[in-house]
Amino acid sequence: MRPHVIVNCAMTADGKIAGKARKQIRISSAEDLERVRKLRTECEAILVGVNTIIADDPHLTVKGLSREVCPTRIVLDSFGRTPDNAKVLDARARTIIVTNVVCKRTWQGAEVLRLGEGRVDLHELMRELEARNVQRLLVEGGGETIWSFFKAGLVDEYRVFVGSKVLGGRTAPSPVDGEGFDDEGCVRLQLIGTEALGDGVLLSYEVVRDATPS
Amino acid sequence: MRPHVIVNCAMTADGKIAGKARKQIRISSAEDLERVRKLRTECEAILVGVNTIIADDPHLTVKGLSREVCPTRIVLDSFGRTPDNAKVLDARARTIIVTNVVCKRTWQGAEVLRLGEGRVDLHELMRELEARNVQRLLVEGGGETIWSFFKAGLVDEYRVFVGSKVLGGRTAPSPVDGEGFDDEGCVRLQLIGTEALGDGVLLSYEVVRDATPS
Repeated sequence: MRPHVIVNCAMTADGKIAGKARKQIRISSAEDLERVRKLRTECEAILVGVNTIIADDPHLTVKGLSREVCPTRIVLDSFGRTPDNAKVLDARARTIIVTNVVCKRTWQGAEVLRLGEGRVDLHELMRELEARNVQRLLVEGGGETIWSFFKAGLVDEYRVFVGSKVLGGRTAPSPVDGEGFDDEGCVRLQLIGTEALGDGVLLSYEVVRDATPS
Repeated sequence: MRPHVIVNCAMTADGKIAGKARKQIRISSAEDLERVRKLRTECEAILVGVNTIIADDPHLTVKGLSREVCPTRIVLDSFGRTPDNAKVLDARARTIIVTNVVCKRTWQGAEVLRLGEGRVDLHELMRELEARNVQRLLVEGGGETIWSFFKAGLVDEYRVFVGSKVLGGRTAPSPVDGEGFDDEGCVRLQLIGTEALGDGVLLSYEVVRDATPS
């Protein structure tokens, strides 16, 4: 069975995950950061797109966990743009960089998977992760990466912390960017919980699957 | 005292108020539409930007209310682009179209206010509405209009219904578009309520004012 895919992100009350020019902003409350820490420990792998690596340079580790038990860090990086000094390449957890089959680049400190001709084929990636016993995959961003998972029909849960600020900006990234669905094609969700976390609120959803056509 | 300004809108769970190419989509639940109907009856005026008139052609009336008690419809239309056959010009409620001082256009069925040199000056508009005994002004969209009210520091409450769907789209309009604040300039909110309304959830906020500098 393919990994259970959980998308988790934080947005402002007007639907932004970062400022204009992709500038990182503080959205999560302390309580939400603790929730995300716990959620990471419940997943075998954490995935982000290379734009997030370039913009924010996150560790993607869980404080207090050893390399052996830390979730595997996965970077979706079709064209091999992860910087050699990215923090995600440190020794604190295992890392997989996923490129397309054309890319030849390698990175010290990371395993490389090459899947798909142009963009990485996410269905192939799911099979690879299943073979590695990844049962829960946490997708943390950014908006283009989350879009690619929704577009491929691979998202099972969507959790969004709504921070209590308004940022504005017609070019600011949102939780789900990409090309966008039309109204008929949009993904239907079922709200399964709302929880106040500090000064914001966590909204948790399950993706509604259409009944299998008979 | 200037009108109390309430921004009300509906967005998807990924922060979109319409599809790509500004295509209108159904986000609100029946319960949310009933809430908005009630909210409109509690306000003396309802304001939208001309882009909303052009894209959606709303009536902006409240079913069952006579012209005399219906809230005044206000279109923020700096350059006079409201179509002559817009539904907002019908006889079901009073209408004010607000242009800049250069615009000469008039519309049958609407009073015209001319305020500000390029874009309409919203502080002047507040004074005009105060003189007309508007105590509560409901701003319903779109993203550029809502941005202009936040930027002018004129928003007192922000209410957003979060519908249970994911739309995606890096160019899809959001509740607050415009140029956008940076992190330091962003508007801080206080969450004052969450309420399930059908398949979505209403988040209600008050805008946090900085203490007056001494």
